[in-house]
Amino acid sequence: MKINRYQDITTIEGEGKKDYIDRHSAFLHCEDNAKAGEKFTVKVKVGDAYPHPDDFDHYIAWVQLWDGENMLAQTNFTAGALGSTPNQAEVDFYIVPGKKMKLTAAAFCTKHGLWHSDEKLVEIAE
Amino acid sequence: MKINRYQDITTIEGEGKKDYIDRHSAFLHCEDNAKAGEKFTVKVKVGDAYPHPDDFDHYIAWVQLWDGENMLAQTNFTAGALGSTPNQAEVDFYIVPGKKMKLTAAAFCTKHGLWHSDEKLVEIAE
Amino acid sequence: MKINRYQDITTIEGEGKKDYIDRHSAFLHCEDNAKAGEKFTVKVKVGDAYPHPDDFDHYIAWVQLWDGENMLAQTNFTAGALGSTPNQAEVDFYIVPGKKMKLTAAAFCTKHGLWHSDEKLVEIAE
Amino acid sequence: MKINRYQDITTIEGEGKKDYIDRHSAFLHCEDNAKAGEKFTVKVKVGDAYPHPDDFDHYIAWVQLWDGENMLAQTNFTAGALGSTPNQAEVDFYIVPGKKMKLTAAAFCTKHGLWHSDEKLVEIAE
Repeated sequence: MKINRYQDITTIEGEGKKDYIDRHSAFLHCEDNAKAGEKFTVKVKVGDAYPHPDDFDHYIAWVQLWDGENMLAQTNFTAGALGSTPNQAEVDFYIVPGKKMKLTAAAFCTKHGLWHSDEKLVEIAE
Repeated sequence: MKINRYQDITTIEGEGKKDYIDRHSAFLHCEDNAKAGEKFTVKVKVGDAYPHPDDFDHYIAWVQLWDGENMLAQTNFTAGALGSTPNQAEVDFYIVPGKKMKLTAAAFCTKHGLWHSDEKLVEIAE
Repeated sequence: MKINRYQDITTIEGEGKKDYIDRHSAFLHCEDNAKAGEKFTVKVKVGDAYPHPDDFDHYIAWVQLWDGENMLAQTNFTAGALGSTPNQAEVDFYIVPGKKMKLTAAAFCTKHGLWHSDEKLVEIAE
Repeated sequence: MKINRYQDITTIEGEGKKDYIDRHSAFLHCEDNAKAGEKFTVKVKVGDAYPHPDDFDHYIAWVQLWDGENMLAQTNFTAGALGSTPNQAEVDFYIVPGKKMKLTAAAFCTKHGLWHSDEKLVEIAE
């Protein structure tokens, strides 16, 4: 099975292809530094500049948050939770790190499969 | 199987029992009014005044967000995501309502079972 | 939120109502006795005499297997996995009991909510 | 994040390494041919010759069944469902294919990450 990898859409030719790649990409939104032992917020949002359909036969069914090889959390969505109109599927996770993390987000579209973000390093601030 | 229901701990006798009930209860945090067709944030947080263990053999494994009879989303956590110290499991969902909602949160503790919140009405503002 | 409970359809009046209740009910199929420390098969099947739609906007999205207050496993289905024609959603779990169990199955229909089976006692054979 | 791929353990040197790879690999067990429109059983079993721990801090937390880029189903397990002794996590899915399939299984170990099986072709018999 194919795993689609993040691509910077500013390097992509063609509006349709930019839209396709952006709206399926899982983006991590969080600070670059966390405090050990304290709650740290990580938003996973699918699509940045473009929205994805929320149709019954075509929607983002789940997202995952990974730290290295360890999955921290997975959110499953029911089709229609975004009002059946195009939007960015989105969830905020609250995790408590002990050491530096290598975060990855994943998203599954029921028509266009699995998408993995780039890895984001989060350092532990002193 | 038993479904544990929310109880207002100010009505409960005994510190241990208050702690037990509070730390397992799933709380909904959101506005009372939403705008139709716009993203609406709903935090589900397990425990309010008291934290719950995040031990491998005893943790909050998942939470769900329901609107009436429809489940909108479920988040599964991996033990240790809260640093293996007591805390409130927490996740923010972003949903897009079309009409008024009757929200319920559910939480599952791997030692103490299933907990349902009270229902919270969210009206659609004009 | 409402939790629909199993009803014996032979006690129900009206073909449409029998069909509605049967096709949403989660049925446990397993032996009455298990051996401690050995794998034990439990089938969860939604519907017995009647099939449920597998439409994108109306399908059985997940089933759960509980032992008392402990959830043992949950299976999430993607719409269309049953070929988009009416059928009984079905999964076989393999669990290893240590002592007698009180099993319950749950099923979630994206149009008609949550359904809980009756509890089934499984004794440990000597 | 790393995705571990199936390796034939007869080509691996060292008993410990064979055991490590085998007990984490997700195996697909199903016929080579299916009938269009009829239920088809696919067993996903983690480990073949070697069992995996079912410890609270180290267990197989979920498996997935994919057909090409489409995830058909995911089963999440609670630690201890295999009696807290080493065994092969196992689940049987029932799917209804319409055309030939390229099945892949995935498994997630809470200590050793994500494992993908080889792809298995299932033809539709006339």
